[in-house]
Amino acid sequence: MGETFVIVGGDAAGMSAASKVKRENPEMEVVVFEKGEWVSYAACGMPYYVKGDVAELDDLVTVTPEEFRDERDIDLRTGHEVLEIDPETERVTVAAEDGERFAQAYDYLLVATGATAIEPPFDGLDTDGVFTIHDMDEADAIERYVTEESPDVAAVVGGGYVGIEMAEALAAHDVQVHLYEMLPHVLQPFGEPVAEAVEAHLRDNGVELHLDTAVDGFGGDGPVERVHLEDETRPADIAIVGVGVTPNVDLAADAGLELGPTGAVATDEYGRTNYENVFAAGDCAESRHVVTGGPDHVPLALTANRAGRAIGQTVTGSPTPVGDIAGTAIVKAFDLGAARTGILDEDRARGAGFDPVSVTISASSRAHYYPNGAELTVTLSADRETGRLLGGSLVGAEGVKRVDTIATALHGGMTVSELQNVDLAYAPPFSPVWDPVLTAAKVLAGQLE
Amino acid sequence: MGETFVIVGGDAAGMSAASKVKRENPEMEVVVFEKGEWVSYAACGMPYYVKGDVAELDDLVTVTPEEFRDERDIDLRTGHEVLEIDPETERVTVAAEDGERFAQAYDYLLVATGATAIEPPFDGLDTDGVFTIHDMDEADAIERYVTEESPDVAAVVGGGYVGIEMAEALAAHDVQVHLYEMLPHVLQPFGEPVAEAVEAHLRDNGVELHLDTAVDGFGGDGPVERVHLEDETRPADIAIVGVGVTPNVDLAADAGLELGPTGAVATDEYGRTNYENVFAAGDCAESRHVVTGGPDHVPLALTANRAGRAIGQTVTGSPTPVGDIAGTAIVKAFDLGAARTGILDEDRARGAGFDPVSVTISASSRAHYYPNGAELTVTLSADRETGRLLGGSLVGAEGVKRVDTIATALHGGMTVSELQNVDLAYAPPFSPVWDPVLTAAKVLAGQLE
Repeated sequence: MGETFVIVGGDAAGMSAASKVKRENPEMEVVVFEKGEWVSYAACGMPYYVKGDVAELDDLVTVTPEEFRDERDIDLRTGHEVLEIDPETERVTVAAEDGERFAQAYDYLLVATGATAIEPPFDGLDTDGVFTIHDMDEADAIERYVTEESPDVAAVVGGGYVGIEMAEALAAHDVQVHLYEMLPHVLQPFGEPVAEAVEAHLRDNGVELHLDTAVDGFGGDGPVERVHLEDETRPADIAIVGVGVTPNVDLAADAGLELGPTGAVATDEYGRTNYENVFAAGDCAESRHVVTGGPDHVPLALTANRAGRAIGQTVTGSPTPVGDIAGTAIVKAFDLGAARTGILDEDRARGAGFDPVSVTISASSRAHYYPNGAELTVTLSADRETGRLLGGSLVGAEGVKRVDTIATALHGGMTVSELQNVDLAYAPPFSPVWDPVLTAAKVLAGQLE
Repeated sequence: MGETFVIVGGDAAGMSAASKVKRENPEMEVVVFEKGEWVSYAACGMPYYVKGDVAELDDLVTVTPEEFRDERDIDLRTGHEVLEIDPETERVTVAAEDGERFAQAYDYLLVATGATAIEPPFDGLDTDGVFTIHDMDEADAIERYVTEESPDVAAVVGGGYVGIEMAEALAAHDVQVHLYEMLPHVLQPFGEPVAEAVEAHLRDNGVELHLDTAVDGFGGDGPVERVHLEDETRPADIAIVGVGVTPNVDLAADAGLELGPTGAVATDEYGRTNYENVFAAGDCAESRHVVTGGPDHVPLALTANRAGRAIGQTVTGSPTPVGDIAGTAIVKAFDLGAARTGILDEDRARGAGFDPVSVTISASSRAHYYPNGAELTVTLSADRETGRLLGGSLVGAEGVKRVDTIATALHGGMTVSELQNVDLAYAPPFSPVWDPVLTAAKVLAGQLE
């Protein structure tokens, strides 16, 4: 008889692992328990559904449950919640939607329980017209609310990716968007040069920014009408709360799986927990940061996909590291792109034993004489003593995918001088002779001499 | 008294070195002898001047001779040809435009004599309306000929960058373009997957391709009227010959500077020739290839700029390597981009001791559901035994600047598995979850298992 691989959670990490296992070893039984109904969907696409760029919510589904079952021979059980994991007896206890409870034995287990949008302690969070983006149903509900109720004024709470993407989506429906951010800047992990450019661009596109501004709650007679701030009340006839996510670790913690310093499930380089045959991956799990070598929690789709796939290889006999992360992220805000990778925060760099030095430069995305170039602002950070590259960011109307060059240099453990000498591509329609990333490296290398 | 740094040739390498030296050590005397009148201009921009995307030829000049003289205190002498270098007495013999001859002593010498467009042994190469792109004057002449003579049919000879960019430029003036290429494909160094996509796109844009077709010469009573092929004659009332460049090494060779296997001046990692205080850089010099570790000759602007600047640092007391090259190149053909880096040719890879394995994949440049994505075709090549990445190419309507990710991985000495695990940026408007470069690495890594 074949072995059994049980997976808790049917999104990116879980379904990548399931698919990989069945490809590598069709004899292995793969059982996936998913609490909800949606599996393997592109959560990152939800703002574009609300905006109207994506016609159908189903377009965001990469593979349907039927395809997983029929084409990939995965025993996928939606509407099934895992209540308990017992690593000693190697069993999970499951509740089906109809109330039935049963035990399922495993040889290998993957905890891929994901993360949940944080619900801050706001008054009136359950008011009609106030949304916290948990899943596809929520995206559907927002889109319907916008279409049917034609709100005039939106309160978007949180200046991270979700807040900024939802601001763009709502503005496309002619909603006057107010964005509330507790911190002094939006996109805090991207650093000030990016944040300030994005803030100016949001304002140019009619978004009213309220920085350093805490929200207390929402009010209204029936649907939402008001957002309450510390000493002010403002109108809002739709509200979207996007203040981050928290890893779903209760099930893992109750089972005795160790959590790491970030609060997510601790894992080794193969995605293993403190139990040899129990893995964790995706938004509920920690990853190793390529610069610090320490644990980090950056819940993003690629990390989940890649880790799931690697774990699928490992449990079928080819031990495969899940890969380090660099915290690479990219976001579109109206017509501006913003991207970051590595360690940009100076305190964090010092905490990891580095002495960070940073530069910020601006350069054209194309040759200066070639039409339609855009100004790109590039920040690079390095360790003063060793010259080792620590991180970087870009902001501009085109070309911010160049962050991949910086991320690759981080994975290669390069110094700034080494990055400065990389043979990047030049032709007038694509870049100046010195790519803006090289110019930043050149300036930073000069400061390190 | 300060030392004297003499530079032969006032383009990218020469002027970069001159500028760097004056920044690092204003006391050093810097004398640049330039045979022509143009210095520090963007030769790569010439096709876009002919096309009409760049209004004035002067827009291609980065820094004017006056700026070099007045603002940077460089003794720049245009119209001065260096006739002889004597490394034993450390002097050069110079001829000024007025016929005067004089000797100039140096402490350090940089040979930056560039390259010259190859003039094939075609009959009628001096016919009116037949152009070989040597410099800015030629670009000016082509632009004037197109505007004043309104040619109907063009013969572009050579399917490299220049040929393809000039085809696009002429087509923009409603000229029917015929492109003649001796080899079976255009863009030979980019490999077949790129070449085939570019060929299809050229045809879609009305360019008539004549592959495997050798040109014998041109004819006409007065201006050019015909292009002669082996067994056929075709009409052409303008012809542009762009079949590559050859390094200008006569001056160096006569002086006893060693040439390398490529025919360009041999240099060490600091750009030094076989004489301790004589350097060579730019299109006349060899570089070290980052993959093979051996000498190569890839005459491109970034290499020249970077080497010149490094040599400027070295001669002012901070020894700085000129940097290895990866042969990275990028070109636009109408609405398609094509890019390459590293070693793609299998024979060449085997010659360098590798056992190459390649894959070619196609993937969307954006999330599948996000509007206006384009198909990107990515080729990656690696060594079978070690998994070391050898090279890569991309072709598609957007996103080919991703070649920089591959180039950075080459400089980092990465394996395909390492590249597969780089944390590249994902958001729906910018990439699928797995960037096409990662997908290619994943598929290639699978073949190496």
